[in-house]
Amino acid sequence: MSITLTNKIEITKATTSKINSVDFDNLSFGAVFTDHLFECDFKNGAWQTPVIKPYAPFSLDPSAKVFHYGQAIFEGMKAYKDEDDAIWLFRPDENFKRFNSSATRMAMPEVPEEIFIGGLNELLKIDAKWVQKGNGSSMYIRPFMIATGAGVVANPSDEYKFMIILSPAQAYYAGEVKVVIAEHYSRAANGGIGAAKAAGNYAGQFYPTTLANKDGFQQIIWTDDATHTKLEEAGTMNVFFRINDTLLTAPTSERILDGITRKSLLAMAEKEGIKTEVRSVLASELVEAAKNDSLKEIFGAGTAAVISPIKGFSYKDEYYEMTKPADSYAELLKEKLTSLQNKLSEDTFGWTVKVE
Amino acid sequence: MSITLTNKIEITKATTSKINSVDFDNLSFGAVFTDHLFECDFKNGAWQTPVIKPYAPFSLDPSAKVFHYGQAIFEGMKAYKDEDDAIWLFRPDENFKRFNSSATRMAMPEVPEEIFIGGLNELLKIDAKWVQKGNGSSMYIRPFMIATGAGVVANPSDEYKFMIILSPAQAYYAGEVKVVIAEHYSRAANGGIGAAKAAGNYAGQFYPTTLANKDGFQQIIWTDDATHTKLEEAGTMNVFFRINDTLLTAPTSERILDGITRKSLLAMAEKEGIKTEVRSVLASELVEAAKNDSLKEIFGAGTAAVISPIKGFSYKDEYYEMTKPADSYAELLKEKLTSLQNKLSEDTFGWTVKVE
Repeated sequence: MSITLTNKIEITKATTSKINSVDFDNLSFGAVFTDHLFECDFKNGAWQTPVIKPYAPFSLDPSAKVFHYGQAIFEGMKAYKDEDDAIWLFRPDENFKRFNSSATRMAMPEVPEEIFIGGLNELLKIDAKWVQKGNGSSMYIRPFMIATGAGVVANPSDEYKFMIILSPAQAYYAGEVKVVIAEHYSRAANGGIGAAKAAGNYAGQFYPTTLANKDGFQQIIWTDDATHTKLEEAGTMNVFFRINDTLLTAPTSERILDGITRKSLLAMAEKEGIKTEVRSVLASELVEAAKNDSLKEIFGAGTAAVISPIKGFSYKDEYYEMTKPADSYAELLKEKLTSLQNKLSEDTFGWTVKVE
Repeated sequence: MSITLTNKIEITKATTSKINSVDFDNLSFGAVFTDHLFECDFKNGAWQTPVIKPYAPFSLDPSAKVFHYGQAIFEGMKAYKDEDDAIWLFRPDENFKRFNSSATRMAMPEVPEEIFIGGLNELLKIDAKWVQKGNGSSMYIRPFMIATGAGVVANPSDEYKFMIILSPAQAYYAGEVKVVIAEHYSRAANGGIGAAKAAGNYAGQFYPTTLANKDGFQQIIWTDDATHTKLEEAGTMNVFFRINDTLLTAPTSERILDGITRKSLLAMAEKEGIKTEVRSVLASELVEAAKNDSLKEIFGAGTAAVISPIKGFSYKDEYYEMTKPADSYAELLKEKLTSLQNKLSEDTFGWTVKVE
């Protein structure tokens, strides 16, 4: 990658590494972090000198705005190590652009490319030994920004902290996922912040999800909040439906995240000759398709799981289940996308970017 | 107050007080904090020993869930000192109940009354000299709870921190407020978290508000997100309209905060013989009333400002302004409510509770 920081990063190396204490075959997602983190503070209207330092807790004032007003955004990305020990990122420019779109929506300052991409590049080089290869292993990357300014008055902060932390991840298998279509709760409003990767979008989903869990469903398919008829996202992922041989997903909007896995799968599907349609899918249409057996597959799409197949869904207290087809699009697309990400197949899209 | 903590609070007093460095005649709202704070951590499924200690920054892991998923709630309350130096709270039971309703909606543990009310009581006694009397002075109280558990996986935290911080406040005058009625952006979804005092509800308002500011409006009157026709809140306050001699405000709902000032003003207005109606008010109705001069007043209602009069509003690029009536309901109700809160008049409602 060609981004270099004009402000040289101040680097403090950890004196010892935690890596030998980590069981890379039994990783819990998002629970283990590497030896270092990247940090850059915004104050007095400017980004300060970026820092790479040992991963450790940090201090904030009790009145910091992130605690009271939720000015906080993040991204989820992955890096992969190929057979020659080179490290690759997947479409990092897309995460960078989306991060700054989220920042604008949340009245936070944009992060310059040399800090976001340049900082990530340096951090991955310093913790390169933590990036495992093979068997679906990857490095989950969490860039995030929080409002650190003090004061309990509801207006935008004048100080922020941008950080990148790294968490090694294994292939992610969510088990057999049953979902319930939301008929009361919602994750986003028209004119709201649903399209931003804002912290506040997530906590609001926890309670409805725990209610669904009690009924035996692992996730919720979110619907539009006005009519609860349009299928929008599955849990924290975009959602795809296969009806007959057509792959359907909702258009992005103010309520729906512009997922990078989502748009990559659409492009990949088209390359594989699969017919795709980007349009609203109605709950009633899904029920009809399930009843006449034209509904073949449902799956979630996101960075963590890549593709998460859904076995069945509940709507208006009726449960519908699909029989997995022999020519599963979910399996085909997951295999194609992860092979490309892991540099096991040719990247004809130009999506992978080498860390160097 | 009769709440006592069965787990005795561990108290560490500040060695010196900051109070002499504070100019109580020139306080910026929410910017100055007292010498101490109250803190209680939740872990292993239980609330731990509560602590009162010197106000100071504290440490969190970079992966703490509050930073990534916005599990954070708060309350806003005030305490007042009367002529005999007794300290009084205003309807603290209402804040306590609403805090725990917010907690439930955000999948956070409820805080026991002995911690919320008992802790606040002790904190106010320790920082009693910070509570100023007269001239509209008060102590703004900010109880809040954040998810402190580590790990970047989107599910509820298993660790939380509950804190109370205190900020001395003067009478709050927002100046001449002009508002714009939201036609695109929204603050809450049906089935969302608009009724909770959740951190994530606030940051989403900042960007639309900065856009309004650029057009010369200080605040936004939020509308329902589906049709943008129903008037719901003004900035971070509930909103009242006076049409002829009737005082109108929207019913509370999943989208609208159940404001304690709001419900107190409704009761106070009824006592004063003012006709009130709790029902949806449409933007078109407001325009019509402005045109035929039956619209007499608009004001926001909340803990910080108590009542914030609105001079005029813009809708569909037309600006409408009211002439302040001689018998202003906003002035009457603010005077009645603040006198009661400050113990300058008899509290016939039983809303004030002595700290002792």
